[in-house]
Amino acid sequence: MNVKSEHTSTLLELNGNILLDQIEQLGRIGIDIEIGGRTRIALTDDEKAGRDQVVRWMQELDLIIEIDEIGNIFGTLPSSSSDHHQNVLMMGSHIDTVKNAGALDGCYGVLAGLAVIRAYRTADVIPERPITVAAFTNEEGVRYQPDMMGSLVYAGGMSAEDALNVIGTDGTRLGDELKRIGFAGSMKVGSIVPREYIELHIEQGPILEQENIEIGAVESLQGISWQQLTIKGKANHAGTTPTHLRHDAGLVAALIMTFLRDISNQTGTTLSTIGSIQFHPNLINVIPRMAEITVDLRDPDENRLKDAEQKLNQYIRLLEAQHGVQIEQKQLVRFEPVLFDQGIVKLIEDSADQYELSHRRMTSGAGHDAQMIARIAPTAMIFVPSKDGVSHNPREYTDPTQLVQGAIILLDVVKKVLSQ
Amino acid sequence: MNVKSEHTSTLLELNGNILLDQIEQLGRIGIDIEIGGRTRIALTDDEKAGRDQVVRWMQELDLIIEIDEIGNIFGTLPSSSSDHHQNVLMMGSHIDTVKNAGALDGCYGVLAGLAVIRAYRTADVIPERPITVAAFTNEEGVRYQPDMMGSLVYAGGMSAEDALNVIGTDGTRLGDELKRIGFAGSMKVGSIVPREYIELHIEQGPILEQENIEIGAVESLQGISWQQLTIKGKANHAGTTPTHLRHDAGLVAALIMTFLRDISNQTGTTLSTIGSIQFHPNLINVIPRMAEITVDLRDPDENRLKDAEQKLNQYIRLLEAQHGVQIEQKQLVRFEPVLFDQGIVKLIEDSADQYELSHRRMTSGAGHDAQMIARIAPTAMIFVPSKDGVSHNPREYTDPTQLVQGAIILLDVVKKVLSQ
Repeated sequence: MNVKSEHTSTLLELNGNILLDQIEQLGRIGIDIEIGGRTRIALTDDEKAGRDQVVRWMQELDLIIEIDEIGNIFGTLPSSSSDHHQNVLMMGSHIDTVKNAGALDGCYGVLAGLAVIRAYRTADVIPERPITVAAFTNEEGVRYQPDMMGSLVYAGGMSAEDALNVIGTDGTRLGDELKRIGFAGSMKVGSIVPREYIELHIEQGPILEQENIEIGAVESLQGISWQQLTIKGKANHAGTTPTHLRHDAGLVAALIMTFLRDISNQTGTTLSTIGSIQFHPNLINVIPRMAEITVDLRDPDENRLKDAEQKLNQYIRLLEAQHGVQIEQKQLVRFEPVLFDQGIVKLIEDSADQYELSHRRMTSGAGHDAQMIARIAPTAMIFVPSKDGVSHNPREYTDPTQLVQGAIILLDVVKKVLSQ
Repeated sequence: MNVKSEHTSTLLELNGNILLDQIEQLGRIGIDIEIGGRTRIALTDDEKAGRDQVVRWMQELDLIIEIDEIGNIFGTLPSSSSDHHQNVLMMGSHIDTVKNAGALDGCYGVLAGLAVIRAYRTADVIPERPITVAAFTNEEGVRYQPDMMGSLVYAGGMSAEDALNVIGTDGTRLGDELKRIGFAGSMKVGSIVPREYIELHIEQGPILEQENIEIGAVESLQGISWQQLTIKGKANHAGTTPTHLRHDAGLVAALIMTFLRDISNQTGTTLSTIGSIQFHPNLINVIPRMAEITVDLRDPDENRLKDAEQKLNQYIRLLEAQHGVQIEQKQLVRFEPVLFDQGIVKLIEDSADQYELSHRRMTSGAGHDAQMIARIAPTAMIFVPSKDGVSHNPREYTDPTQLVQGAIILLDVVKKVLSQ
């Protein structure tokens, strides 16, 4: 073993300034000057510009850069061993964004990964095992469904071929767009085999801030159930149709919304959101003929999640009978809750203790690439606080000190994992 | 008095075939072959084509044709008196449509008016007083608000200048479009002074059909209250925001919808409809930051209508406090219930009895030009059944026999009114 690989805190230092600077630079790509948010939806020109920037930074660190079939980007700091694809400690996240996003969601995890590797490069330390930073394709799923696609494909949950053939909301084929922006790589998905995966992320929720805690040791991830409901009633004149003769698709949508909130209030753990709605014909004086809503249900416990789904199904059948409507259900996404690796979670707690940072174990409310990679490697996540819990919004913000603290913990956990 | 004006049933006969043929011809203008509906939104090229056709038919009847400042079209069969603007018996309705409309709403009343005059022309009978058929501008209010605009202006409820300056949903100025299609007339609004106004219309509701009744003697018109509610909450991540910390504008919209339905169920007379909704940002996994809904409240009784408005206002204040949202209310339309002329209503019943048609008194659920003209002249309406109560839809339908029956009653009521 190379003498330089001895891990002492004097040798490996996290450069917070470069990290913060890179977050800001990446955050300027695709920015809307007026709103302040940036939009880098997967495989658009702006996202390509973000990818190019990340690749340049990987080049500056003299990493082995590889792009796989689905466009996932990997930068690897090799160990002294000849095979940089095996026994890899992988960090990562994504750099695609929603519309008018903040600068931190995803980007923070990728750039903090580079900051960890930079600590090794600066100290001229060769790690015991290869360290890879991954930027996964299309985590947000705005243009192409499903979300977390790059990591899902990487972990074998969806074939690369199927993913490349996905047609986007704008009618484009994912594979064509990937080729167009020059990121249709040749490496087979799964080629770099992670022995562990660690993802640093902003919480995107209010819990750490509300409890005034600096580090979240994320031990699990909520199950997610997404469905699209299409309620078919009957359009009629708002002024001439007696109430008892109505088949009001809009009212039925409203009843479902309040029913799901009641479930959330009763369980205390099931989160329910109707974020999207569309009435047809959507006119002030016409009873809606059709209402389309999305349902987002989440719970850290699979049984409770199933229970919420079943209660909704029963209620839907009841509404069909009571209101003379037809309700079509289409499952869009269904992920069971994920339990992360207790060993890595424990190391996160140890690191936080060591740096005298307050911490708590927690569940991730959002979906993350980590939940996919957890299928093929022991995985955990580190959270830092989000101001007001805001994300997917230009007002997304985390104190710079907390951002650097999170990266320091990531570096320390990497050191601890490698020294095991 | 001219001997020809003696009203005997042998002299004056309603030609049902021409009426039905004209309804079909007018219904072909602006037709969508695929859907079957036609779209003649006020002051568009297609509506101009409809207007031109109606004017041609008025010319065929050798009527005095006049267009006023707001584009209302009047065709008058003069009496032997020299002044055809005074003591006029006016019939009318409108020929503009909503999107993908049926062929009957409005058009039926205008063309049945022409059929009544045709009976006089065919029998070569000069009426005791002038008879005018009016086609009022922009009854539907799709492109320019408010609806029933032409009759509102005619009755003095809005100045012609204000109406001409209204900007449409497409950014056009009403006065410019009126000029463009060649219907910016020179006659001052109100110049033709109705002594009575009678409007024949399809019910646009299910009551007559359900009760198997042929003629509705419409004695009143519901009060209408339209408002736009803008609910401002806070956008947040659907998976990370605990239920008790949410300010969900969409859920608040749903609560308002179910609250209003409860009011309708309790009163039995107040109709409530939320026909239009928009969430922002309208994404599956983002708690809606903003929800915009329209509220359509109707009741034949002003006190009950006010009561529903007040209950909604109180509930809105409660929701603001409970959910930490702001709700802006904007009144769009407010019309008190209208009581029609009991004398004319009685004549409608008498005519129906005479022709052995079943009839009932009823309230109009929809707004009509008649409610505006009721401000300046004794007014009533005649309804015929609508199949399934459907209107504002290509499936709008009334049995041809019933259409002709309605026109026969209209002719008979005109005869009765003129002979009084």
